[in-house]
Amino acid sequence: MAVTAKPRVIVIGAGFGGLWAVKTLAGGPVDIRVIDRNNYHTFLALLYQVAAAELEAEDIAYPIRSIFRDFPDVDFALAYVHRIDTEKRIVTTDKKAFPYDYLIVATGSIPHTFGVPGVDTHAFFLKTLEEGVELKNHIVCCFESAAMLGDRAGDSGILTFVIVGGGATGVEYAGALSELIHGSIVRDYQNIDFRSVRIILLEAAEGLVANMPESIRSYTLGKLRQLGVEVRLSTKVTAVTPETVVLSDGETIPTQTVVWTAGVRAEPVAALSGIPVRNDGRVPVTPTLQVPGHPEIYVVGDAAFIDTEGGALPMVAQVAIQSAATAARNIGLQITGRQPLPFRYRDRGSMITIGRNAAGAVIGSRTFTGFFAWVLWLVIHLANLIGFRNRVMVLINWAWDYLLYERAVRFVFPSQTPSLSKSPSCVFRTRCDDERLNP
Amino acid sequence: MAVTAKPRVIVIGAGFGGLWAVKTLAGGPVDIRVIDRNNYHTFLALLYQVAAAELEAEDIAYPIRSIFRDFPDVDFALAYVHRIDTEKRIVTTDKKAFPYDYLIVATGSIPHTFGVPGVDTHAFFLKTLEEGVELKNHIVCCFESAAMLGDRAGDSGILTFVIVGGGATGVEYAGALSELIHGSIVRDYQNIDFRSVRIILLEAAEGLVANMPESIRSYTLGKLRQLGVEVRLSTKVTAVTPETVVLSDGETIPTQTVVWTAGVRAEPVAALSGIPVRNDGRVPVTPTLQVPGHPEIYVVGDAAFIDTEGGALPMVAQVAIQSAATAARNIGLQITGRQPLPFRYRDRGSMITIGRNAAGAVIGSRTFTGFFAWVLWLVIHLANLIGFRNRVMVLINWAWDYLLYERAVRFVFPSQTPSLSKSPSCVFRTRCDDERLNP
Repeated sequence: MAVTAKPRVIVIGAGFGGLWAVKTLAGGPVDIRVIDRNNYHTFLALLYQVAAAELEAEDIAYPIRSIFRDFPDVDFALAYVHRIDTEKRIVTTDKKAFPYDYLIVATGSIPHTFGVPGVDTHAFFLKTLEEGVELKNHIVCCFESAAMLGDRAGDSGILTFVIVGGGATGVEYAGALSELIHGSIVRDYQNIDFRSVRIILLEAAEGLVANMPESIRSYTLGKLRQLGVEVRLSTKVTAVTPETVVLSDGETIPTQTVVWTAGVRAEPVAALSGIPVRNDGRVPVTPTLQVPGHPEIYVVGDAAFIDTEGGALPMVAQVAIQSAATAARNIGLQITGRQPLPFRYRDRGSMITIGRNAAGAVIGSRTFTGFFAWVLWLVIHLANLIGFRNRVMVLINWAWDYLLYERAVRFVFPSQTPSLSKSPSCVFRTRCDDERLNP
Repeated sequence: MAVTAKPRVIVIGAGFGGLWAVKTLAGGPVDIRVIDRNNYHTFLALLYQVAAAELEAEDIAYPIRSIFRDFPDVDFALAYVHRIDTEKRIVTTDKKAFPYDYLIVATGSIPHTFGVPGVDTHAFFLKTLEEGVELKNHIVCCFESAAMLGDRAGDSGILTFVIVGGGATGVEYAGALSELIHGSIVRDYQNIDFRSVRIILLEAAEGLVANMPESIRSYTLGKLRQLGVEVRLSTKVTAVTPETVVLSDGETIPTQTVVWTAGVRAEPVAALSGIPVRNDGRVPVTPTLQVPGHPEIYVVGDAAFIDTEGGALPMVAQVAIQSAATAARNIGLQITGRQPLPFRYRDRGSMITIGRNAAGAVIGSRTFTGFFAWVLWLVIHLANLIGFRNRVMVLINWAWDYLLYERAVRFVFPSQTPSLSKSPSCVFRTRCDDERLNP
């Protein structure tokens, strides 16, 4: 690498925030280093479709190096960040330490279990590509196990799927799971009684998708029930065990599948580095998105607590994208000796999809439900996918599913190893585990 | 399931042999049970392209249940076979025991290390989908590590890739790896000196692809050298360590990538069940493909040692397909009280592809090399893939690669965990391993 006197900007995280920060900075008078523990960006908005065997994992991921191939000043490090040394201005990782002049923390969020016993160990999450694949594998395994059990499958709880959290992820996954099971899986298992299948969506509050207008909320509830999803409102989970979920009303439901989408908190790197955070791990930033007392550190997206006149901004992709762009522009201003500008969020609306031909959308003061909203959802999500090839692949998979009611990606792959699996009834072995060869 | 008096046929393995056995049996007066440790069939002929980041793992796999969806008499069990009890006529698995009246053993082959120290532990193989993905991940990781090392990468051996075995798999992978690195990866790593990259193909015999005619053999050698592959003939490996490979001439080559394609032996289930086998684990079968003394047990494909007037048949897909069909027909004959017929193998030719526009093919007494053979190879492989969707996906990936010199599937996914990884320089962590959270 050439010796340079340009300011070094490190961006931690290559999610929506990280990517947009780099895109805004690239080409400017800075050396940029992106650090991520994966070598790909994940389009998390479609992760639930990976978990519902509708898309392949690769369809919603894109190699980070390829995104920035045309920018010679952007470098990438595949590394795991241990700590930010805010005094020495160094990011330490499992590979190397990287000094910075400016830092953008775009580390996103992780599941919040709220301390409910058993969730960490036994529940499935939907926040990383691995988790999406793990959940998909588990679902297919449940049906393989049910095929072995025959008539006893219904009582065992193996065909009961519990989703905790009635926000967008929980709703979208419940709908997609119902369509996967009743549209596609049903055709492959002749000796399973599909009337035993239960999909239960639990929500602690009084209604689903709390951030949506009432018309979309009631539409969502109706559509889910039409898809056979049992929606239980005002119901909390008090414990998860390997074979049950325990509810606040005392009921215990036998199940081997608890999908936890009930909450998120910030990834802990800021907190672990001594940067002051709130209870949920988010860093309260200045209106210009800087860490108080550290004008060289910006925090964006889910990692940041961004207070506005209308209240704190939600942890959604739009906030990540817009805050990252502002942080990047503010660094540009600082470098040229000017003052950073306050962040202004523009709400571009929000959408939710429940299933085939069924979605809800809010754009400005207008709301849409049904087929039109669903097409809008498809178009917007396709357009926001990174990479032309990914768009083609997703479009093919969607068309396939829509026209043929067929999900082609129903593999249990990679074979789960016992140590990695949360699925007690479905443990697969690799050759290394061959007890015949290693008795 | 309905009670039935039809003979129960168990087919172990859903590779080429298993699938063709079931296809031939299906619809006949039998109840068929396929047992496999994966819920998908793998098109192994294209596995090296998964390992070269050209195809996605899902493109060459197809769900077994979907293949046999239209045959009500075919059932599937996702299970790991422990043993065949040839006296009680029971197949025991990790899930359940399955009694049979007729059995077809189509368990295929696994790598043969010939006892060379370190191969089991440190070498990569190309016999399962997992191994293909593991190798691809490792290759990408090597370049990420090299990007961190900068100028020191060349000396570390991290950019030296050693392939052992000059048969079809070794040759095809060497060519594909060279095209991956010099056509696609080179564009993403600006600070790596690609003159440090070495791809070495080692072959113990005096020439490559021993089963091919001389014209194709010399063409193959020339094409590989043109692609920058160092081909070393008459060279054996005596040891593999985490960071070197030791050769029979005493040379030690620093490398973290040894791909072992030097030999295969039969999967050991027959041997472990007390069925007499040869040194390489294959069961010597009668001309009708039965186990001597067990007319109810057939062995087909790589698991069988099939002696003919022209010598023992090779362990290739065509033998598996044809022998499985014969075994299935012979069971049909036995059920109706007739005598099984001897197996007659029809050699339909063989092919090898070295790279872009470069392949060799033997069909009958004619040989072809170059562009025409390459197109033939593409067409035949596409046609033999199972599933229309897989064909579409593979065609898109091939077209992409051909037109844009771009491999889109260069992800390290799933993130490798230390215990699963053979790659000392490239260990990635999952959230479970987060030592910040679990100090």
